[in-house]
Amino acid sequence: VSVALTPPSVILVRPQLGQNVGMAARAMANFGLTDLRIVAPREGWPNEWAIKAASGADWVLEEARLFDTVTEAVADMHYLVATTARQREMLKPVVTAEAAATEMRAKTAQGLRCGILFGPERSGLENDDVTLAQAVLRIPVDARFTSINLAQAVLLVGYEWFKSADATPPEVLDPGHTWPANNAELVGLFEHLERELDTAGFLFPPEKRPAMVRNLRNIFIRANMMEQEVRALRGVVTSLATARRKKEAG
Amino acid sequence: VSVALTPPSVILVRPQLGQNVGMAARAMANFGLTDLRIVAPREGWPNEWAIKAASGADWVLEEARLFDTVTEAVADMHYLVATTARQREMLKPVVTAEAAATEMRAKTAQGLRCGILFGPERSGLENDDVTLAQAVLRIPVDARFTSINLAQAVLLVGYEWFKSADATPPEVLDPGHTWPANNAELVGLFEHLERELDTAGFLFPPEKRPAMVRNLRNIFIRANMMEQEVRALRGVVTSLATARRKKEAG
Repeated sequence: VSVALTPPSVILVRPQLGQNVGMAARAMANFGLTDLRIVAPREGWPNEWAIKAASGADWVLEEARLFDTVTEAVADMHYLVATTARQREMLKPVVTAEAAATEMRAKTAQGLRCGILFGPERSGLENDDVTLAQAVLRIPVDARFTSINLAQAVLLVGYEWFKSADATPPEVLDPGHTWPANNAELVGLFEHLERELDTAGFLFPPEKRPAMVRNLRNIFIRANMMEQEVRALRGVVTSLATARRKKEAG
Repeated sequence: VSVALTPPSVILVRPQLGQNVGMAARAMANFGLTDLRIVAPREGWPNEWAIKAASGADWVLEEARLFDTVTEAVADMHYLVATTARQREMLKPVVTAEAAATEMRAKTAQGLRCGILFGPERSGLENDDVTLAQAVLRIPVDARFTSINLAQAVLLVGYEWFKSADATPPEVLDPGHTWPANNAELVGLFEHLERELDTAGFLFPPEKRPAMVRNLRNIFIRANMMEQEVRALRGVVTSLATARRKKEAG
């Protein structure tokens, strides 16, 4: 049996501001979430503030579905996560956004439908809504300021969802058409520079020369240069040396 | 020497909308960032839209500093990260938000000042601003919709900063005043239930009894119950069985 893998649905329960719905839609689009469900939005639906705030993520809003109750909105869900900032007196696993993403990734890969419930801006989800969920998602925040904007909560959950299957390496060099310099190229630059500095009388007195050379080499080694940058610096050395010779000759 | 460890500064370069500055301040407060620097904001400063959007993170806005140029705003920085959505033709490491957080955490622990540059909403940072930074931060997003709102970019960077030193376990049970049931308590429930089901004639015929018992036990094992939940279910079994007996007797 071939199963279509559907990313998790975002279910906004009684959102107060259309603007937040629009910004949530934009955040969803950033991270590949497309199924938006809206339960009894206070400002009605469709909403022009939502469209403005979506900044081009129109298709998410156009395909959004409206429901009267949470029960109807989550009827087809197999794994439901309820976001909440408050501690609830419920015997239910409390997970981070990252752990929720990992779990939803695993469920989705089995063909199961996952959804994340977000409550109204001011009050959050009601306990009866939270009870329908398999887990409670609480985003770790600074205890001195715990109030997260609705759309920003959607963003963080979407971000972790996307990240859980993203292969971007932690660090890369912007792809240039060049390659890191090898040691021979570096030593070529070093010896070129040191030759010119000997000529100029900079590496003096002789007993201090070895330490001075090492210090200079360490600067350039730390810069992790590319081939073309080594060539550019050799040009710089030549240019400065030639200018000095001309001045001395002139 | 005792060094005060200062969390990274957020530097908003020529932001267009006060509302985004305010939402950025709120996102900063969520994740323990407090030093906001603003370079030549289009709508001027202070800004009432910013205050409204900060939703109570007023101290971040009140302590924000205004600068005319990026060079002045970052003068005291030792490690600077430039956020950008576009590929730049620059030989500079490109890092994820998570990698940037790890690096800034390490630098900060050494007493070095770190900062994150964010460009104007529409155009992003100029190449000359990016050049001042040690690394480029590019948040991995869905290629079909790459435009991230300014405040949401600040939120994601702040989130990774906070997360890099956060010890919240991926999953916990909400702290109840109870404890997971041990095996003896579970078997006590199972045998209670099976005794009543034998009396009621449900576990029939006898050759099917072992499989039926195993199936029922598996349901309750998967529920990972707490002590008090096991006691509650024993109450449920007793209640149902008593009601049946009364009905039969009546």
